[in-house]
Amino acid sequence: MTQSREIRLKARPVGMPQAGDFELATVDVAAPAAGQAQVRNLYMSVDPYMRGRMYDRESYVPPFQIGAALEGGAIGEVVVSADPALKPGDLVQSMFGWREVFNAPAAALQKIDPMGLPPQAFLGVAGMPGMTAYVGLLKIAGCKAGDTVFVSAAAGAVGQIVCQIAKIKGATVIGTAGGADKVAFLKEIGVDHAIDYRAEKDLTAALARVAPKGIDVYFDNVGGSHLEAAINAARPFARFAICGMISQYNDMAASPGPSNIINVVGKRLRIEGFIVSDHFGDLPAFLTDMAGWIKDGRIVWRETIDEGVASAPGAFIKLFKGENTGKMLVKLS
Amino acid sequence: MTQSREIRLKARPVGMPQAGDFELATVDVAAPAAGQAQVRNLYMSVDPYMRGRMYDRESYVPPFQIGAALEGGAIGEVVVSADPALKPGDLVQSMFGWREVFNAPAAALQKIDPMGLPPQAFLGVAGMPGMTAYVGLLKIAGCKAGDTVFVSAAAGAVGQIVCQIAKIKGATVIGTAGGADKVAFLKEIGVDHAIDYRAEKDLTAALARVAPKGIDVYFDNVGGSHLEAAINAARPFARFAICGMISQYNDMAASPGPSNIINVVGKRLRIEGFIVSDHFGDLPAFLTDMAGWIKDGRIVWRETIDEGVASAPGAFIKLFKGENTGKMLVKLS
Repeated sequence: MTQSREIRLKARPVGMPQAGDFELATVDVAAPAAGQAQVRNLYMSVDPYMRGRMYDRESYVPPFQIGAALEGGAIGEVVVSADPALKPGDLVQSMFGWREVFNAPAAALQKIDPMGLPPQAFLGVAGMPGMTAYVGLLKIAGCKAGDTVFVSAAAGAVGQIVCQIAKIKGATVIGTAGGADKVAFLKEIGVDHAIDYRAEKDLTAALARVAPKGIDVYFDNVGGSHLEAAINAARPFARFAICGMISQYNDMAASPGPSNIINVVGKRLRIEGFIVSDHFGDLPAFLTDMAGWIKDGRIVWRETIDEGVASAPGAFIKLFKGENTGKMLVKLS
Repeated sequence: MTQSREIRLKARPVGMPQAGDFELATVDVAAPAAGQAQVRNLYMSVDPYMRGRMYDRESYVPPFQIGAALEGGAIGEVVVSADPALKPGDLVQSMFGWREVFNAPAAALQKIDPMGLPPQAFLGVAGMPGMTAYVGLLKIAGCKAGDTVFVSAAAGAVGQIVCQIAKIKGATVIGTAGGADKVAFLKEIGVDHAIDYRAEKDLTAALARVAPKGIDVYFDNVGGSHLEAAINAARPFARFAICGMISQYNDMAASPGPSNIINVVGKRLRIEGFIVSDHFGDLPAFLTDMAGWIKDGRIVWRETIDEGVASAPGAFIKLFKGENTGKMLVKLS
């Protein structure tokens, strides 16, 4: 019998999540039944979208349940297998994050070809955040050579990849991030105009300064004043890929929307939300392109790694305080 | 020498336009020069978009000038021609509305085949409003059989056509309008669920009542609370064609945008603004389809007609008070 520690939702957060909204529990994990494998997680992901699952409301994914272990992307190693499709040592991806060890049917475990990458890359650049960047920028926003692309939360897990794919495609890239360190990182990865939004009183003015002719694409991770500034900066026929609105995930009341939404008509803007899981058919193309770009050194990335399952709630909370650069991960073993 | 009366912009309206923002002037119209024709207008159009041109700001069309005659769609008859392409009696469409008689180069006059329709139809069902409905519903929103389509200002010049094209295409149609007369009209033209928005405290609740499974398409002429209710009612992957936001055209300060804009992500909404003049390549297809539908009695329409050029400012103001049903026109001779 193996023991595993896991993080459970203790209470639904009100506003900014607090440590007390989570609890650490220890459970016994039996030997895997036939058709199952036992996995020891190496890394787990914390992602902004998980905040939405902490509300008790209808959405595109069901809410987390109080008292149950949380779920999310994880990468682990098979330790015992009772299914012919898997063997000990196999690297697998699953949605059984927030825990150290678990049993699952082989069908719920996606075997990973490491492609020479560190395992946690499959939770970041070569995983869901990387594919979110790829699908959102290229398929939803239709980014092409010559475009001026504005990316918010550009130093985040998704944003850092969006910026670099946009550069690969021949775009001019504007990225916002909070603080001098992140701005320096954006310059390192080739962002043409890196804006520290915390140092700007007026984001519309900041965009006008660096892109006087306006923007063709906006990749939104933030919402709120970033979205409003992007509408002001938009050129006619600009395309907005709306990936997330992290500035609003902890709002306790509905926030006003962009006061300049009327410009959608005169500027003929297209504002489109998307969720990467609707686009899994693009996974092979994404992996092929991304593996090539990484091999050629055209895509690099940062990670912020906390250690141990007990640190997971804190790692999650950091996302909303902007305390991560690149992908926020928890190393579990 | 012929005399013509015309309406000039006297002052830029602040908020709701007032009669005093306009002035009536009389001008002499000489004989047309070579390459020109002289036209006597039969009907002129007043349209909500003209409000935008009364502001002194950059937009997709230049602002109207103080002291100059206003411009807009008109349909008239050639009275004298000094160009071989036109002859007296020809029906022509132009942007020289807001006046009785004018000279213009033949190239600025679009000769109209009456197709058995009354001339003013080319300012409505068979003109810009009809084509706006056609392009917005079919091309921007991609309306198809089985969709539930919500249309705001459904008894207006554009809305009445959107509703009927949606029915032709096999959609279920929900339309909002102000007052019992307009609601009765919507039922006459086959709208499945006609909502008097003035009688509803909560438009979201009204939509949920008639479309408990939500909407697939929203054709927006109104903005504001209509747009917010449409986002609430939207099913996943709903498409919004944003044609106008008449509720906001007279705003003296920026209004808050939809407080539920964050749902664009979870519902994967596509919100797209459009302007019919970007789609003139679709004119032949539109005219062919529309002529057929009118001939078959599948498209009918209403007009609200005021008489005489002096009544044009009042007709224009009626648009913002919802005092027109169907296309608002001014009969000039």
